[in-house]
Amino acid sequence: MKILAVNAGSSTLKWKLFNMPNSTVIAKGLIERIGLNNAVEITEFSGKKVTEKIESRNHQEAVVRLLNLLVEYQIVGTLNEIRGVGHRFVNGGTIFSKSVIVNDYVLEKMESLKVLAPLHNPANIIAIKAFREALPNALSVAVFDTGFHQTMPEENVIYSIPYEYYKKYHVQKFGAHGTSYRYVFNRFLELTNMAKNKANVNTIMMHLGSGASICAVKNGQSIDTSMGFSPVSGITMQTRSGDVDPSLLIYLENQLGVSSTRVLDILNKESGILGISGISPDMREVFAKKDVDHRADLAVKVFINRIIKYIGSYAAELGRVDSLVFTGGIGENVPFIRRMICEQLGIFGVKLDEKNNEKSISKEQKISREDSAISVWTIPTNEELMIAKDVYQLQGQEL
Amino acid sequence: MKILAVNAGSSTLKWKLFNMPNSTVIAKGLIERIGLNNAVEITEFSGKKVTEKIESRNHQEAVVRLLNLLVEYQIVGTLNEIRGVGHRFVNGGTIFSKSVIVNDYVLEKMESLKVLAPLHNPANIIAIKAFREALPNALSVAVFDTGFHQTMPEENVIYSIPYEYYKKYHVQKFGAHGTSYRYVFNRFLELTNMAKNKANVNTIMMHLGSGASICAVKNGQSIDTSMGFSPVSGITMQTRSGDVDPSLLIYLENQLGVSSTRVLDILNKESGILGISGISPDMREVFAKKDVDHRADLAVKVFINRIIKYIGSYAAELGRVDSLVFTGGIGENVPFIRRMICEQLGIFGVKLDEKNNEKSISKEQKISREDSAISVWTIPTNEELMIAKDVYQLQGQEL
Repeated sequence: MKILAVNAGSSTLKWKLFNMPNSTVIAKGLIERIGLNNAVEITEFSGKKVTEKIESRNHQEAVVRLLNLLVEYQIVGTLNEIRGVGHRFVNGGTIFSKSVIVNDYVLEKMESLKVLAPLHNPANIIAIKAFREALPNALSVAVFDTGFHQTMPEENVIYSIPYEYYKKYHVQKFGAHGTSYRYVFNRFLELTNMAKNKANVNTIMMHLGSGASICAVKNGQSIDTSMGFSPVSGITMQTRSGDVDPSLLIYLENQLGVSSTRVLDILNKESGILGISGISPDMREVFAKKDVDHRADLAVKVFINRIIKYIGSYAAELGRVDSLVFTGGIGENVPFIRRMICEQLGIFGVKLDEKNNEKSISKEQKISREDSAISVWTIPTNEELMIAKDVYQLQGQEL
Repeated sequence: MKILAVNAGSSTLKWKLFNMPNSTVIAKGLIERIGLNNAVEITEFSGKKVTEKIESRNHQEAVVRLLNLLVEYQIVGTLNEIRGVGHRFVNGGTIFSKSVIVNDYVLEKMESLKVLAPLHNPANIIAIKAFREALPNALSVAVFDTGFHQTMPEENVIYSIPYEYYKKYHVQKFGAHGTSYRYVFNRFLELTNMAKNKANVNTIMMHLGSGASICAVKNGQSIDTSMGFSPVSGITMQTRSGDVDPSLLIYLENQLGVSSTRVLDILNKESGILGISGISPDMREVFAKKDVDHRADLAVKVFINRIIKYIGSYAAELGRVDSLVFTGGIGENVPFIRRMICEQLGIFGVKLDEKNNEKSISKEQKISREDSAISVWTIPTNEELMIAKDVYQLQGQEL
């Protein structure tokens, strides 16, 4: 059964076509700069990689183009072969805790959530509608990045602001990276033979990519996560600030003579590793200069510091931590970052296996020593496969 | 030697007159609602407490009134007996790391710091000027709430925002409650006979009052604290929000149709325990209703949760924690809050001595069991005495 996993960003459309249930990738691709003059389509299939300039004024056109190229490149014989399309949906609010089949009623609910993720949710909705129109016989499924965190207790979800804003305007912690955490947590349970004992598992997962967050799992369920009402809060990211003092926004508004919207834009796009280092948002590039550049050194120190502080806070919350799991681009592929983090967790008895850590690039691997009080793992994430699996199961199939 | 400790708020003037070096309080008082129509003066001396309505259009008038009443009530024979006046100064920026004698040069530097604490620093400056004019022979000293935290490493001080805002506009963590922490830390060293081993002491202090913060001391120096660029960040307070997602400010601005300044005002004055509970900013009142009121219960849970998360994060940062110290109105006087906090710190081996905890109201007391991995203390703070001691020592006297 061919299933398409789709991730629509504000000006991008990423996709992966799976053959289920064996989870093989038939083809994958990306349409970038949608709505701009110079849209580009990158497609990988049968060992080939094709890059083409195209016209794509909006997500609807991008979807039509994507479906045409699947036939054009003979990735599928006919579009009817695609039995399901799964969509990443950034913020499902408090309405959606699990992946759902999209119908008109669900779409209406989604419309009401636009305001909670104004950059992402509207693009997600356009893509869902376009696919439903173009592939009326394929099952349409939405998979929510916030779903995994719906188990967080209320005291971790609310902010210490007037309660009415929580109830009336839905100001609360939603978290993100939920699809990634769900995939990684399931793999972790399989690798450790703990699937049957899930309710006893306490773990801290770190999704360290361009966006980055940390998630505390207690008794098999997410109880806290570092991203909050939006993905700008939490730890230091490539270009996002993570946590800041609320007064800082208005102070900068006044000092720079700009709008509050512009300040938030700075916190989202010009901050983080890029803002501190002034070199690059890429941790590896910045790390390479840390011995000769003070700001590069500072960026690395801040990145590590904020992570170990969140781990400490979640350890206190969990009461007992069995394991730490690294995932995401940095988490999977940058051993020195994992080493620097683990070296500062001595208070919790973390002992890294240096050799296994160095070797583990994009691998499922235990990287702690046998005498470590907490086991440490690397588990590459696969959000698209998680989406494809959800679609497959919502077809009534068992995995 | 008579020394006056002064704390000028935006509409208040608190003072305490000490006899040094024996640290006895000769008299103390408060002028409230300065600049409003119904200013009130409360004075305590020789076992009496006098409350009087007065006219006080500004801090200058309040200072003149205070000095008059000292003579009028025969608290002093003549004003010349007052040999020094110490002023609490909220934000000394990166300029002042220690208490200083105020001269014209220092005052000029202080003027440049107004923008960093627009509610407090201007009032402090007016009070300093008024006392220098009225008591030209008394030593004028400024004591900085940020001074104790000047030892924080740069990676804990900067935010993950463009570096130029840190360098050019001084956007960074300053912290607060430094005078309180300095007093309490010194008492802690005395009580534990650790003064000579100060450089080996790792402790986490909690100043839990109407404003509340946490401070991590490593090798005898502050390395991190929960208040940041302003006193609104960190843990949940009586009416202040503590940490929130930065996006939340602009979202509320749009939803409520108000200015960003108004949103910050909400986070300062209508949030925290008051905002969540809707009952009161007073933890004891809210706690009393927690079994019958969901929001009261939630406010207590959030208050505790944010504290234990900060303790966890500082434990990770410190690597080794010797002790926890409670101070401030709640920290000194509310055993059930201390119990709830310590109960959730099992991962660090904290074991409370229930009896000593219950007994310790405004007392210097060890409240952990002998087999606790971390010792826990209550130490009542005394910011005014710390100020008086600084003045005394800057007179060239030894304590």
